[in-house]
Amino acid sequence: MTVSLLTDKYELTMLSAALRDGAAHRRCVFEVFARRLPDGRRYGVVAGVGRFLEALEQFRFTDADLASLDGLDQATLDYLRDFRFTGDVDGYPEGELYFPNSPVLSVRGSFAECVLLETLALSIYNHDCAIASAAARMVSAAGGRTLIEMGSRRTHERAAVAAARAAYLAGFDGTSNLEAGRTYGVPTLGTSAHAFTMLHTGPDGPDEPAAFAAQVAALGVGTTLLVDTYDVTTGVANAVAAAGPELGAVRIDSGDLGVLARQTREQLDTLGANKTRIVVSGDLDEYSIAALRADPVDAYGVGTSLVTGSGAPTASMVYKLVEVDGIPVTKRSSNKASHGGAKQALRTSRQTGTVTEEIVYPDGQPPTIVDPSRQVSTALVRDGAPVTDQRTQLADGRRRVADGLVSLPWEGLKLSHGEPAIATRIIAPGAS
Amino acid sequence: MTVSLLTDKYELTMLSAALRDGAAHRRCVFEVFARRLPDGRRYGVVAGVGRFLEALEQFRFTDADLASLDGLDQATLDYLRDFRFTGDVDGYPEGELYFPNSPVLSVRGSFAECVLLETLALSIYNHDCAIASAAARMVSAAGGRTLIEMGSRRTHERAAVAAARAAYLAGFDGTSNLEAGRTYGVPTLGTSAHAFTMLHTGPDGPDEPAAFAAQVAALGVGTTLLVDTYDVTTGVANAVAAAGPELGAVRIDSGDLGVLARQTREQLDTLGANKTRIVVSGDLDEYSIAALRADPVDAYGVGTSLVTGSGAPTASMVYKLVEVDGIPVTKRSSNKASHGGAKQALRTSRQTGTVTEEIVYPDGQPPTIVDPSRQVSTALVRDGAPVTDQRTQLADGRRRVADGLVSLPWEGLKLSHGEPAIATRIIAPGAS
Repeated sequence: MTVSLLTDKYELTMLSAALRDGAAHRRCVFEVFARRLPDGRRYGVVAGVGRFLEALEQFRFTDADLASLDGLDQATLDYLRDFRFTGDVDGYPEGELYFPNSPVLSVRGSFAECVLLETLALSIYNHDCAIASAAARMVSAAGGRTLIEMGSRRTHERAAVAAARAAYLAGFDGTSNLEAGRTYGVPTLGTSAHAFTMLHTGPDGPDEPAAFAAQVAALGVGTTLLVDTYDVTTGVANAVAAAGPELGAVRIDSGDLGVLARQTREQLDTLGANKTRIVVSGDLDEYSIAALRADPVDAYGVGTSLVTGSGAPTASMVYKLVEVDGIPVTKRSSNKASHGGAKQALRTSRQTGTVTEEIVYPDGQPPTIVDPSRQVSTALVRDGAPVTDQRTQLADGRRRVADGLVSLPWEGLKLSHGEPAIATRIIAPGAS
Repeated sequence: MTVSLLTDKYELTMLSAALRDGAAHRRCVFEVFARRLPDGRRYGVVAGVGRFLEALEQFRFTDADLASLDGLDQATLDYLRDFRFTGDVDGYPEGELYFPNSPVLSVRGSFAECVLLETLALSIYNHDCAIASAAARMVSAAGGRTLIEMGSRRTHERAAVAAARAAYLAGFDGTSNLEAGRTYGVPTLGTSAHAFTMLHTGPDGPDEPAAFAAQVAALGVGTTLLVDTYDVTTGVANAVAAAGPELGAVRIDSGDLGVLARQTREQLDTLGANKTRIVVSGDLDEYSIAALRADPVDAYGVGTSLVTGSGAPTASMVYKLVEVDGIPVTKRSSNKASHGGAKQALRTSRQTGTVTEEIVYPDGQPPTIVDPSRQVSTALVRDGAPVTDQRTQLADGRRRVADGLVSLPWEGLKLSHGEPAIATRIIAPGAS
């Protein structure tokens, strides 16, 4: 399965036309940014950097790829046959926070080589940033309790793997998705579903004790028993009877989770299972996670809302040509004014570390800043080769998200709808 | 890239426990259904059947797959090493409409072989049905005008390919996505982006005529020129100047599309370009498509709203164990009552063909129905092998969606929020 056809056709027709008139070889800068955050969001989380760099290395056209393309002239086919990206890429590292107009990715090279990457870059960034941004809100809502990603079934089967990666980046503790475990080393978790309990049904009806005994025999007393298939109180009693007071955890997947968690905690304690943890799941989102803060919940399993970006399934990032042979270019159509010229960003902060502003300035013209500040972008690719020691590892990204959340002004962590946590100031070329 | 690890870990732990106590070999029926349609939707469209059948054939565990799995006992690894699905599958064919509790997929076999398919089946159905269901609303809103799927950049790069397939199934005319063209034969469309126009910028500024001339030279006068990079009126004039009155189409991607379409139609007609088509794009959904019905628009390009299911990015389908060794089983936890026993569905209609009811009845106990009716499910797999002449082709599915939409009562095609177009009647076992 090659990646080069994960591309919109117009990139190849533009290539064809540009090769014909020679413009294909002009030096260009394309930038990826979001004009705004999803409605009411206060920050975004960059994710997908590592996936994009990997896809960039794989971005070649096989003979089979080329044979599938209709109507392209020979010069275009020849160009594609030899294609590899030879330009430079800079960008916000994996796990960095972003705000409106943050230049999260800058791609430099010939028009031909840059234009071909538009769709793939945007697909990866728009998906992964949407998931990581939603996940980070859940992480801050959970206040240190364990979060397990279990939404694979609610999204496309391959998107599920990327979603598990993005959730882990944002601070989730693990995933149900086995491929995410293999590909990205995300810890995998999971024990059983209602079907396993219901499987243990005989002529005399349901036999939850048999199901629990079978699970404990196979997985040990440290396992998590799902106690809400029939009746939670009976389920908890059956669970402790099967595993003893060393039972690892019980999971509740339905009903009023707060009430059930309190009742279950009391019941477990009464049964001597003081260390048995309580896992809750079932249509949780950042708001319901926060609402359970006062209840004795040890871990949350989150599915649908995570993999669908909790109301914002795409990050609305765009890939825009901003510079041609050193000349800033902009579009002038209604309501879509963009800012020409290659850009860099500085993030300023107070002495305490709390961030104060995102300053987007023309590349090479850094403004004079009195407050503490740092460059947000980093070199990702030089002359087509990944800058290896910069290549983002998930562990680094997890630290970066955690540090980023701590750096926000307090209102930036509010779950309610509001303005971006810090303002973005855009300095026009020549204005600094 | 294998498909077998696109699976939640708990399926393997359940398998392990069930192999140990022998329950793994009990004969089971699992069903896929949606308890409800997304908020206010009046019907759903089944999609992903062909993708699921293909994944089912590929569902094997390689040595590398097995090596990546931690903590499984030898019996489980041995089972997985030899695994292939040997059971039966019935389901609604590709493009069939569905309603709450429609049994869109029924999987029969041992517990072991059925439980392993849960995540993959749901991922495919939840994604593809969500996209096709949104797409069908756009198709009916477009009233016969051309619809082009161009949302790849707004969703995960592999989900994009499936989304293009689902949109085509629902009646879209083509996609921008090249891989969807190769894999599924979906017609691919696309010509150019703003970047191509902006690429033609020199020391004296933008040169839209040069861009259009280059595109026409490469792609012919039948191409579509994007006219809103700078000024639409000037863009249209430049477009006709470059291509002559035989210009294929102009595309407008921003602004008040209705106003601009009317102005552009008048301008094109004045310039003698009476046959030049007008394509509009830019944050369209079913509502804005419908709102443009009175305007001279020939084709719509739809992106974000299509690939995100227009507010419903997942179809909320579940995969539930309903029968064990012939015994109906149900869960009894709060608010999630399910209906035990394997089921079939009949769809009744008036003599005119307008559908009236979805009747879900216990398998083998068909109710006596006076009105015209038909069985909705069909055999998809027998003894592990696809029933090939039933294997759904996209062309058949497109006809099925079109026929399904025509069969709905008139209010079923309303875009506004409402009840399902027909009611689902569930007949309990023994009640008919």
